[in-house]
Amino acid sequence: MKNLKLKFKIKNLCERTKKASRILALAGTGAKNRALVAMGKGLVRNASRILRENDKDLNLARKSELPPAMIERLTLNASRVASMAESLFDIAKLKDPVGEAIETTKRPNGLLIKKVRVPIGVILVIYESRPNVTSDCVGLCLKSGNALILRGGSEAINSNIAIFNVLHKELISSGLPADAISIIKDTDRKIVGRLLVESALIDLVIPRGGESLIREVSAKSRIPVIKHYKGVCHTYVDEFADLEMAEEICFNAKVQRPGVCNAMESMLVNRRIAKKFLPGMIRRFRAAGVEIRGSAEVKRIVGGAAIALATENDWYTEYLGLILSVKAVKDVDEAIGHITKYGSCHSDAIVTENRRNAEKFLNEVDSACVYVNASTRFTDGGEFGKGAEMGVSTDKIHARGPMGLEELCSYKYVIYGKGQIRR
Amino acid sequence: MKNLKLKFKIKNLCERTKKASRILALAGTGAKNRALVAMGKGLVRNASRILRENDKDLNLARKSELPPAMIERLTLNASRVASMAESLFDIAKLKDPVGEAIETTKRPNGLLIKKVRVPIGVILVIYESRPNVTSDCVGLCLKSGNALILRGGSEAINSNIAIFNVLHKELISSGLPADAISIIKDTDRKIVGRLLVESALIDLVIPRGGESLIREVSAKSRIPVIKHYKGVCHTYVDEFADLEMAEEICFNAKVQRPGVCNAMESMLVNRRIAKKFLPGMIRRFRAAGVEIRGSAEVKRIVGGAAIALATENDWYTEYLGLILSVKAVKDVDEAIGHITKYGSCHSDAIVTENRRNAEKFLNEVDSACVYVNASTRFTDGGEFGKGAEMGVSTDKIHARGPMGLEELCSYKYVIYGKGQIRR
Repeated sequence: MKNLKLKFKIKNLCERTKKASRILALAGTGAKNRALVAMGKGLVRNASRILRENDKDLNLARKSELPPAMIERLTLNASRVASMAESLFDIAKLKDPVGEAIETTKRPNGLLIKKVRVPIGVILVIYESRPNVTSDCVGLCLKSGNALILRGGSEAINSNIAIFNVLHKELISSGLPADAISIIKDTDRKIVGRLLVESALIDLVIPRGGESLIREVSAKSRIPVIKHYKGVCHTYVDEFADLEMAEEICFNAKVQRPGVCNAMESMLVNRRIAKKFLPGMIRRFRAAGVEIRGSAEVKRIVGGAAIALATENDWYTEYLGLILSVKAVKDVDEAIGHITKYGSCHSDAIVTENRRNAEKFLNEVDSACVYVNASTRFTDGGEFGKGAEMGVSTDKIHARGPMGLEELCSYKYVIYGKGQIRR
Repeated sequence: MKNLKLKFKIKNLCERTKKASRILALAGTGAKNRALVAMGKGLVRNASRILRENDKDLNLARKSELPPAMIERLTLNASRVASMAESLFDIAKLKDPVGEAIETTKRPNGLLIKKVRVPIGVILVIYESRPNVTSDCVGLCLKSGNALILRGGSEAINSNIAIFNVLHKELISSGLPADAISIIKDTDRKIVGRLLVESALIDLVIPRGGESLIREVSAKSRIPVIKHYKGVCHTYVDEFADLEMAEEICFNAKVQRPGVCNAMESMLVNRRIAKKFLPGMIRRFRAAGVEIRGSAEVKRIVGGAAIALATENDWYTEYLGLILSVKAVKDVDEAIGHITKYGSCHSDAIVTENRRNAEKFLNEVDSACVYVNASTRFTDGGEFGKGAEMGVSTDKIHARGPMGLEELCSYKYVIYGKGQIRR
């Protein structure tokens, strides 16, 4: 009985969202931008209320002893709320992707074929921790004409609802359909299963969070899923690297914000420059509180006592904290081989002044983002000029890397004829 | 024991294909084109052998009394083999999508970000009947740098293997990796289930065939699926249509090749011109052997005896044969409403000289291909200038409508820095 009622409620929510999605898909750019700006202002105006609700979540998190990386992701403060609002203002300034002709072809028979960007429809986002995901997703979906169902984690439920309520009120005041965005307030896990079978009403599922969440969603879903898996990101310091530059890049990639998916987890160093590069680099890491887990060779070079021996499992691990695995490799080929075997196809960098090695690395490493001479920390919708991001896809289908407005669109073919028939 | 052996065999096949996919991904355009031309010539040279194998399939099909639409799809002849070869020559002439920079951004911090087209990796195609799918898929995957595993239906197994063998021999002679294409010769259905869990080795599954096949694949697959569902295609004849043009378009859309997914299944006619348009149109359809199933109003207009009364189920049905459902509607809004409810988001057309109604229809009908004043029969990779097609996607994720070379690609971000770190 309770299950039937739940099923009915979910179905009803999905049907209302689908209906609203057709209206939002046809909404003008001006109306969408006005709503985005109003939402941003609403967040700033209601910051103290949002922070009070965030405090509730943080208190519960500390009581239930969530890991520090998770608490860091969960934490809001005035500046993080302000930057959520900034993202909404930025999204309002971005070009509306909807209706853009991606390609126009005139066929020999006179048919004019336009490939036109259109919204995907209804998107379900299932996420953990970071409450800013709530407003980033609302902003990006609204601008790209997609209706949105949010399902946040129970650990951030108060923060998420507080943020959502502010945004929803402004959406309604702007005259856009109220059902275009909604949040699931009930934290019952059965609800996710119910949502994932509604393949006729929901067009796409984006899970963001831990590996187990993503695996569970992928296994259960009858709806297409774009996975945002872990980031086991590497930096390879080539024998032809500018070693000073390499030190700055590696330090930044590991230490600047270790709790996120684009932080470096594994450093690979060419054997020929390892003795010159590693001791100073590792001293600097250790001074910043980074625990080093090195291969036997790295231990020998740096002096065994200072660092732990990496196990096979270390090479696969996304630490999301101040731990780094370090390996010496023979050349760029061995580095590529290591990344192919242990990486997660997220973001990987080479530091080198040698053009051939750079191009080899960029071509052969099969990751969403491949860098030469820059920190992997740049893998981010904002840094890529997309205003904000729905996350970083580690899939190859539809969207790869930071997902912004264009990646939230599908397309349709619009064909203009003058009575053409097929012979 | 047998199951374990099967599992091992499938795993091994997938691993070899994955490995070959990394080599093929980096292959030059010249090498790929030479292989495509050799394959096309091989088909022509071996046409009589292929037709002999096709005869075996056709004899079995007739014995097991397959429906005529299926036998029509299964049938090869000299001209169909020649057009398979033509498709391969056409694909060789198309621009190589791999490596193309889709977008280039220079960020304020100096980072140069290139969004570059790359192959998806390993693609599994599961298909029924039409043997030309074998060579179209090989051609498109090869040119787009993707490795391919083919799993055809048992009803076409002799034709498919004959075609594959010709193509495979030419691939090897061209020096490209032999494992880049393979066909599953064993028709045991368990194999499909085994393939669909290999999500680390296969990047995409494309099922082409009946609805039950596609539903089964979608339900079982742990790998992303791009569905090629049915085509319940509509033509709406507006009150402002050029009625002579409308008659030609509707006749073509229904009769020219009724067994395929882009043929019209349902004709909607504006009430104001129904009396003028329908009697002659339906006479012509009936003379061509088309069975008409009309709404009560259509029966009244045309004269009840000549046509059957359409049931609710008729509006949802893809006949794939000489049957047509016909309905009178009040206006373009009712036509759009009908298509939204009963259509399959494949291809739908409006015939009208009224610009407002045309734009309304094109914007609001949420289908892969929307036409004004042309036959829906044009929804086809070749007709769209794509050389050939992997099929027509009715999904909105990644690819929609005819899938050609570009739609068989993913992309990666290649980022060039000069030591940039994130602040």
